[in-house]
Amino acid sequence: MVKPVTSFLKRFLIGRPLKSTELGEQKLNKAKALAILSSDALSSVAYGPEQILLVLITIGATALWYSIPIAIGVLLLLTALILSYRQIIFAYSHGGGAYVVSKENLGKYPGLIAGGSLLVDYILTVAVSVSAGADAITSAFPNLHEYNVMISVVFIVFITILNLRGVTESASVLAYPVYLFVLALAILMGTGLYNILTGNVPAELHVPLGTPVAGISLFLLLRAFSSGSSALTGVEAISNAIPNFKSPAAANAAKTLMAMGAILAVLFSGIVVLAYYYGVAPMAEVTVVSQIAEQTFGRNAMYYFIQGTTALILVLAANTGYSAFPLLAVNLAKDKFIPRMFTMRGDRLGYSNGIIILGVLSILLLFVFGGKTEQLIPLYAVGVFIPFTLSQTGMMVKWMRGKPKGWVQKFTINTVGALISFLVTIMFFLTKFTQVWPVLIFLPLLILLFHRINKHYEAVADQLRITTCEQGIQIEGNVIIVPVAGITHVVMNSLNYAKSLSAHQIIAVHVPFEREEEAVFEEKWEKWQPDVRLVTLFTPYRSIIQPLTKFIDTVQRKANESNYKVTVIIPQFIPKKGWHNILHNQSSLLIRAHLLFRKDVIVTTVPYHLKK
Amino acid sequence: MVKPVTSFLKRFLIGRPLKSTELGEQKLNKAKALAILSSDALSSVAYGPEQILLVLITIGATALWYSIPIAIGVLLLLTALILSYRQIIFAYSHGGGAYVVSKENLGKYPGLIAGGSLLVDYILTVAVSVSAGADAITSAFPNLHEYNVMISVVFIVFITILNLRGVTESASVLAYPVYLFVLALAILMGTGLYNILTGNVPAELHVPLGTPVAGISLFLLLRAFSSGSSALTGVEAISNAIPNFKSPAAANAAKTLMAMGAILAVLFSGIVVLAYYYGVAPMAEVTVVSQIAEQTFGRNAMYYFIQGTTALILVLAANTGYSAFPLLAVNLAKDKFIPRMFTMRGDRLGYSNGIIILGVLSILLLFVFGGKTEQLIPLYAVGVFIPFTLSQTGMMVKWMRGKPKGWVQKFTINTVGALISFLVTIMFFLTKFTQVWPVLIFLPLLILLFHRINKHYEAVADQLRITTCEQGIQIEGNVIIVPVAGITHVVMNSLNYAKSLSAHQIIAVHVPFEREEEAVFEEKWEKWQPDVRLVTLFTPYRSIIQPLTKFIDTVQRKANESNYKVTVIIPQFIPKKGWHNILHNQSSLLIRAHLLFRKDVIVTTVPYHLKK
Repeated sequence: MVKPVTSFLKRFLIGRPLKSTELGEQKLNKAKALAILSSDALSSVAYGPEQILLVLITIGATALWYSIPIAIGVLLLLTALILSYRQIIFAYSHGGGAYVVSKENLGKYPGLIAGGSLLVDYILTVAVSVSAGADAITSAFPNLHEYNVMISVVFIVFITILNLRGVTESASVLAYPVYLFVLALAILMGTGLYNILTGNVPAELHVPLGTPVAGISLFLLLRAFSSGSSALTGVEAISNAIPNFKSPAAANAAKTLMAMGAILAVLFSGIVVLAYYYGVAPMAEVTVVSQIAEQTFGRNAMYYFIQGTTALILVLAANTGYSAFPLLAVNLAKDKFIPRMFTMRGDRLGYSNGIIILGVLSILLLFVFGGKTEQLIPLYAVGVFIPFTLSQTGMMVKWMRGKPKGWVQKFTINTVGALISFLVTIMFFLTKFTQVWPVLIFLPLLILLFHRINKHYEAVADQLRITTCEQGIQIEGNVIIVPVAGITHVVMNSLNYAKSLSAHQIIAVHVPFEREEEAVFEEKWEKWQPDVRLVTLFTPYRSIIQPLTKFIDTVQRKANESNYKVTVIIPQFIPKKGWHNILHNQSSLLIRAHLLFRKDVIVTTVPYHLKK
Repeated sequence: MVKPVTSFLKRFLIGRPLKSTELGEQKLNKAKALAILSSDALSSVAYGPEQILLVLITIGATALWYSIPIAIGVLLLLTALILSYRQIIFAYSHGGGAYVVSKENLGKYPGLIAGGSLLVDYILTVAVSVSAGADAITSAFPNLHEYNVMISVVFIVFITILNLRGVTESASVLAYPVYLFVLALAILMGTGLYNILTGNVPAELHVPLGTPVAGISLFLLLRAFSSGSSALTGVEAISNAIPNFKSPAAANAAKTLMAMGAILAVLFSGIVVLAYYYGVAPMAEVTVVSQIAEQTFGRNAMYYFIQGTTALILVLAANTGYSAFPLLAVNLAKDKFIPRMFTMRGDRLGYSNGIIILGVLSILLLFVFGGKTEQLIPLYAVGVFIPFTLSQTGMMVKWMRGKPKGWVQKFTINTVGALISFLVTIMFFLTKFTQVWPVLIFLPLLILLFHRINKHYEAVADQLRITTCEQGIQIEGNVIIVPVAGITHVVMNSLNYAKSLSAHQIIAVHVPFEREEEAVFEEKWEKWQPDVRLVTLFTPYRSIIQPLTKFIDTVQRKANESNYKVTVIIPQFIPKKGWHNILHNQSSLLIRAHLLFRKDVIVTTVPYHLKK
C-alpha cells in the first residue's frame, strides 16, 4: 500500500487537517489581505506607465508629455472603479464581485459573461505574472534562459502548495515582498521628487506641457489611455474575496480597497511624473522603472533593491489569482454552472479543488505558449474590462430600481465608471483586435458549457427529488446471479453469502472457453453444490462479459415480470499487498464496471481477503 | 460514452475478433515462418562480418586475412547451434526453447536464467533493430535526423499493430522484404564471385592467406571471433515459436531451421569472402556491405536496391522479437513466474498482452537511450549466448540420462555447441566487460522478481484450493449499513432493496459536516423512514470515509459475535452520459474502493440510472 507514504507527504506539504470550526482562524486581517489581494494591481505599476509611453513614442519624443493628461485619465478611471467597487462590497458582502452583481441586476447571461471572463482571467494572471517574474530572473542570469518554463512551473507549484496550506499562511509569507516593493518605490519617488524640487534635474530633459505635436490623433491618445488602463487589472479581486476577511468582513474589505486604491494612485502617478521629468523614453532592453531608478541612484544597492522587489511582486501577482479564483468558482458552482467539487473545502479549509485546478490550468497555458505569455496581456486586460463594465452597469440598474437615499450620487459614480470601462473595452477591440479576438471565441463556448452543466444539474435534481411521504415500490423478491470461475474458497464464500439472503433463486454462471472444460466443470459442481443451479455459457471468444450480459438480460426480462430484482454477486479475492494486483486478471473489476454503468442490476462484491 | 469510437478504432486497426476454433488458420507455413522468424538472424549478416573486420583493423590491413579462418570458426559454431537446436525442436516440440530445455534438465534457476535473459533480449532486439533501421533512413535523408526516435517509435507501433492483427497477417506483409533482401545479397554474391573467378578483381587488393602479422594475439583473434558471433543472435527464435507452425509443427520447424542455417551460412561466408578479395577495410561512414556493393555495381539501381532491402530487414529483425517474446512469456507465465495475463489470447488469437508489453518496453528503452541503442548490441549478444550455453548443456544432460539410440553423436553435437557458446560468453565478459556488466545486475534482479511472483501465486493457490465436499460455515444473518447523503430517489431505491433482503438489521448512516444540519436531517428522516434506524456521525473534517469506517468497525465487532455478516449498500446514481461523471463527486466510488480493500465487509452498489 502506498497510502502511508503519500499521506505523510501530504501532511508534510500541506499540514495537518483543520476542523471546520477553525475557519475563523483562517481569516485575514487588513494588512495581510492588502498584501495578497493587491499584489496583482500594484505589480502593474511596473509595466502600466511604460505601456502609455510605448504608444506615445511612436509619434516622437515630443509627444511624451501627453503621458501626464493620460495618467490623469487613468487616475479618474481608478477613482471611479474604486468607489464603485466599494459600493459593490457593501451591497454584495458575500463576495462574488462582478459575477454576482451582473447576475442579480442584469440577468443570468451577463452574469455568466462577467464570471466566465474573470475565471479565465485569473488563469491568465497566474501564467502571465509568473512568466514575467521568470523573465526578470533569467534577464539577470542569462544562462538560465532555456529553463524559463521550468522556473515558472516551480513558482506555480510553490504558490499552489502555499495556498493549499491555507490563506493565512500564504499571506504571512507573501506580505513581506509586497510591502518591501511599496517601500522601495516610495523611497524612489521621495528621492526623485526631492531632486526635481531642488532643481537637481535639468529642465531640458522634458518637453513643456502643451507643446504642440505633429501627427497626434484622438485615436492614438485613446489607444495610449487603454494601454495604461491595463494597470488597473486586479482592482476587482478584493470584491471576490470578501469571505476571506476577518469580520466585519465588508467594512474591512472596503477599507483595504481604499488603501489599495490610494497606494496604486500614488505609485502610478509617481512613476509617470518621474518619467516625464527625467525625459525617460521606453527602451527594448531596460524597463522604465529601471531607467528612473538608475538616474536617481546610479547602479548601487538601492537600484538592485528596487529591481529585486519588482521581480518578486511580478511573481506574487499570481497569488491574487489564487485568492480570487477559488471564491469566484464557489459562487459559480453554487449556482450549478461549474462542477460541484469547487464548493468543497480541503483539509486546510481552503477551496483546494479550485486552487489545484488553477495551478494545473496555468501550467498548461505556460506549456502551450512555451512561456511566452506577454502576448496574452491585452487578452487579459480586455477580460477584466468586460466584467468592469458589466458590474458597474449592474450597479446602475440596482440604484435605479431601489432608489435608496442618496442614490443619485451613487448612480453617478457607477455611470462614470461604466462609461469609461466600456470605452476602454471598445478601444481594446479597435486598437488591438489581433490580440483580443480569441475572447470572442472562448467566451461564447464557455457560456455554452456553463449552460449545459447547469441543465444537467437541474435534470439530476429533478430526478432525485422526493417528497418525504413517498416510499417507492416494494421489491417482491430477488434473483441472484453468481459468476464463478472455479471451485475455490472465494466462490464458496460468495455462495454462502447468497444463500444467507433468502433469495428467490440463486444461479451460478460459468463461462468456459473450451468445450471439454464445460462437462468437467458441470460434473464437479454437481458433487460440490448440488442445491445451486449452474448455468454454463460456452464462448469461442475468450471474453466473459458478452455471454454474461446476454444471460443477465434474459434473467432480468423474466424477473421484471414479477417485480423481482436481479443482483449479481461477484466473488473477488483481495491480495495482501497492492502490487500483487497486477498479477491477477482483474476481470471482476471489469465486470462490475460494465454491469453498473450499462445494466440496471445490483452489483455486490464479496471480498475474500488473502492472508499471505 | 466513448466506447463505440474506441471500439470502431480497435476493429479498424486489429480486425474482427476470431473464434478460438479459428486458431488453425492462424498457423504459419514454412515459407512465411522462415521470413518472420529468420529476419533477426539474417539481418545480422549486414553487420556481423564488419564486426570481425573492425577488431582486426586495429592491428593493420595485413591482419584482415584472418577474417577467413574466423569466419570458418563462426560457421562451425553456427552448424553446432543449428544441429543442436534441431534436436531441441524435436525433443521439446511445444516450444519454449532454451527456457524449457534448461529448466527440465538443469533445474529451475538455470531455466529462469535462460528464460529471463531471452525475455530481456527480445526487448533489446526490437529497440536495437528498429533504431538501426531508423539510422539507415536518416543517413539517406539527413534532415530527418532529429526525428530518429520518433521514426523508431512509429516503426514499433506499426509492427505492434501488425502483430496484434495476427501472426499470419504480419507474415504475409513481412515476407516480401526478407526474401527481397536474400535475393539482393544473392545477386551481389553471384556477380562478385563471377568477377573474382574471371580475374576481374586485381589480386593486389587482398593480402595472401597466411601472411605473418606483427602484434597479432590469441586474445585479439578470440575477440574478433566473439564479435563475429553476434551475427548468430536470433538462431534460437524458431525453437521458441514452434506452436506457430502448421502441423506437423516440429518437423516443419526443423526444416525451417535448417533452411535458415543454410541461407545464413551462405550469406555470411559470401560477405566475408567478397570483403577479403576486394580488400575492404571497415570505414566510419560507409558499411562493408555498401562498399562491396559499390565496388561490384557502382552507384546504380542495383546498389540502391541492396541498400534499401538492408535497411528494411534491419527494421524487420524486430519482428522476430514479436514472434518469440509472447510465446516465451506464455511458457514463463504458465509456470507462474510472470503475470498470468501473458497466457491470454487476444481477439485475433495472438498473445496480445505479450505483444503490447514488448512494444511498450522497447519504446521506453528507446526513450531512455535517446535512440542510441548501438551500445546495447554486446549486451544483447551476451544475453543470447548465456541461454545458448545453458540449453546445450541441458541437452547434454538429457542425452546422458536417457541414453537413447545414437545418443553419442547427439551428445557430441551439443557438447561442441555448449563449449563454443560458453567460450564466446566468457570472451564477451573478458573483452567487453564495460558494455556487458549490466547483465550481472539485472539478471539476478529479474530472477528474484520471478521467484517472488511465483511464491505469491503458490500462496494464492494454497489459500483458494478447496475439496469438493467442503461447504464452509453458514452465515447466521446479515446486518446492512446504508450510507445516505440526503432524501432522494437514489436512497429510497437502496433502502427498498435492503428491506427486500430480510436482513437482521438495517442501519442508515448520515455524516453531516455541520451541527445544524444534523438535527434537521434526523427530523426529516423520522417522518420519511420511521422504521429504518438512522445514525448520524457528525464530523468537523469534511470527509465521510473516516467516521464511516469507524462506525463499520464497531458494527462488525458486534456482528462477528453472532456470526452475522456486514453488508454496506451504497446508493449510486449513474448519469446518462460519460462526461457527466466529472460533475459529480464520486464519493461512492471512493468509499467502495476503501471498504473493499481495507475492510472485510460486503459492498453492494444499487445503481439508479438517470434518464436525462
